[in-house]
Amino acid sequence: MSTLGAPDTVTAQRRAALGVMESPTLDSWQEGPHNRWVFRNVEETIPSARISHRPASAVMPSLGLGAIEGVSDLASRLESTYTDGLVVERGGQVVAEYYAPGFGPGQTHLLMSVSKSLCAIVVGSLCDDGLIDPLRNLEHYLPGLAGSAFADATIEQLLDMTAAVDYSEDYDDPASEVQLQDRAGGWRTNRPGDPADTYEFLARLKRSKPHGEVFQYCSATTDTLGLLVEAVTGQRYSEVLAERLWSKLGADQEARISIDRGGIAIANAGISCTTRDLARVGRLMLSGGVAAGGRVVSEQWVTQTLAGGDSSKWQSARRDLYPEGSYRNQWWATGNARGNVYAVGIYGQYIWLDPASDTVIAKFSTEPAAVGTASAAAHSELFADICEVFAGE
Amino acid sequence: MSTLGAPDTVTAQRRAALGVMESPTLDSWQEGPHNRWVFRNVEETIPSARISHRPASAVMPSLGLGAIEGVSDLASRLESTYTDGLVVERGGQVVAEYYAPGFGPGQTHLLMSVSKSLCAIVVGSLCDDGLIDPLRNLEHYLPGLAGSAFADATIEQLLDMTAAVDYSEDYDDPASEVQLQDRAGGWRTNRPGDPADTYEFLARLKRSKPHGEVFQYCSATTDTLGLLVEAVTGQRYSEVLAERLWSKLGADQEARISIDRGGIAIANAGISCTTRDLARVGRLMLSGGVAAGGRVVSEQWVTQTLAGGDSSKWQSARRDLYPEGSYRNQWWATGNARGNVYAVGIYGQYIWLDPASDTVIAKFSTEPAAVGTASAAAHSELFADICEVFAGE
Repeated sequence: MSTLGAPDTVTAQRRAALGVMESPTLDSWQEGPHNRWVFRNVEETIPSARISHRPASAVMPSLGLGAIEGVSDLASRLESTYTDGLVVERGGQVVAEYYAPGFGPGQTHLLMSVSKSLCAIVVGSLCDDGLIDPLRNLEHYLPGLAGSAFADATIEQLLDMTAAVDYSEDYDDPASEVQLQDRAGGWRTNRPGDPADTYEFLARLKRSKPHGEVFQYCSATTDTLGLLVEAVTGQRYSEVLAERLWSKLGADQEARISIDRGGIAIANAGISCTTRDLARVGRLMLSGGVAAGGRVVSEQWVTQTLAGGDSSKWQSARRDLYPEGSYRNQWWATGNARGNVYAVGIYGQYIWLDPASDTVIAKFSTEPAAVGTASAAAHSELFADICEVFAGE
Repeated sequence: MSTLGAPDTVTAQRRAALGVMESPTLDSWQEGPHNRWVFRNVEETIPSARISHRPASAVMPSLGLGAIEGVSDLASRLESTYTDGLVVERGGQVVAEYYAPGFGPGQTHLLMSVSKSLCAIVVGSLCDDGLIDPLRNLEHYLPGLAGSAFADATIEQLLDMTAAVDYSEDYDDPASEVQLQDRAGGWRTNRPGDPADTYEFLARLKRSKPHGEVFQYCSATTDTLGLLVEAVTGQRYSEVLAERLWSKLGADQEARISIDRGGIAIANAGISCTTRDLARVGRLMLSGGVAAGGRVVSEQWVTQTLAGGDSSKWQSARRDLYPEGSYRNQWWATGNARGNVYAVGIYGQYIWLDPASDTVIAKFSTEPAAVGTASAAAHSELFADICEVFAGE
């Protein structure tokens, strides 16, 4: 029998606190009393497809690449970076966009780790409201993770990825913790002995050395922030994301987030949205935390994020590309002269911020490999060339 | 390794024809070239939760039950029938509604077999356009099902549920075909030897006797209609449902439909939508096939459906409730003096049509048991009492 609910007590307590279904299984979800929750949230248990309510006349046409057609080899560079969707916007207006065949402005795409940067915006807003103290340790908010790697890491260390975790982020290694995280979270087949869900996975991770010494990009770290959001709000992560971010963006349509067998949102990677809506997230960053529907996060938090982190702690394969690079609040800072800051996800997902020309670039891709320095360089150069078009305007 | 794609060639061919992902597994979906399809449709592989883009100010308030408060014991009857949502509308206007705690106008709910009646509206529109001839046998359109129970059933027999299938619709019997269908379609845990997906399940079913003799309510029959829709359009069922029905309703928001491991939509039961949008489907039936966005299906088809089927063939546990009852085009006709016709799903989902008072009632429930004559009678009486309020208006 496939267990949708996680077996451990902490997960059961978490679900009860959030009003989530009482651990139904795939073989019992149709029955009462589980069905009252599940019938309202079937897509959290069973994969589903969208049935759009938009009439054909309401389908938004793509603007096309006209405004940036001067970029050299643009078409071939979009193709060679496996672009699905590209939106360039300035001052809140889309000025150029491209969609691969079969994709368009009304369709959604997986963000992968760009999801992390969205999570941090929500955490920032909760810090603004005093619900989270960034200098507190995680165990203060999540005593259930007291025995884990993260217990004595501060929220700030988690945001800046300086928590020290015995964890390999090697996407191609079946023995890595990031693949185990996928298996726990329902993104790969769960094997005997694997943690039943993300919470149980996080609880098992151990600290590798003192926190705060060095940057360690670790997807598990972001998932603790997702659980933190739930702990301090008493709401589900997807609901808080809607309330504090998505409903304020002036978004064209809803986003969605992957849910694991324990009912836990995959905060580190699981969001899907449209390319234009992704650009709106970048816009709020360049607008000091304000979106179409009002303030999302404080200007101070945005300024801190765009200023980047401690480059001396930044051990990264991207050091060759960005010698002064750093990481702050789940965003990557290039440390270059233009002040570019970006969110990035494996297989080529990006929000690229160019404060110098007030430009946001959102890009969805499906590269064949998860990561690669050649891809990072190609994207960096492409984005620089696009922003160069607006130089002096 | 969990196989998302079905192993049989027919399913692979179907997917290729529809441009659906090339049978990735849960352990390979992130890699290219599968990822190009999957990253755009992650929710078809991984369960997901909604992140609403609606600002709090745009949340629609419930009208309340004022207009029908004269119905005796209304509150207790809604509670005793495990009501999640109830919408009463007349002439295109919602006049009364109720939502259980934690549910509301902007939330979706599983339709169960009310999905069948929506499927038939799409089939009707394809008959109108000459893409389907209701007098043809199914194998003409789906040669891949030539060896199955359904091969020599006409489309009309499938619509009227007079195909004769060796199939038990006993929801509580683990040995029943309806539970096997759930296991094949991903609604229950797949066991060794079970069909890998809905297509393979349907292909295995055998005819029990000549078609057309007697009514046999069979959920598998509707799933052949879903595949028929794909075969004659070359599009996925969810896309056709959007194009021909959902985008014409003036719906408040998108609907969703469960997808099995083979990428096949669960046409017989898998749709979720809001209560108000469900009422809009009933409205189009009482409006002769026309919805807010234009004609959906011909008046002739609606008239035929509302007239009901051959009561002499109607062997049903509901015969006591509706002595003149029948079934036509995946809708149930009561045969009563008011001409009530309805769509119904297990655990208490309804669209109730009352032509006499031009009233549509949509109701979502989560009863503890799948079916029951007491529940059917309670709902029938509740709907009659609600419509009685409008008598003489």
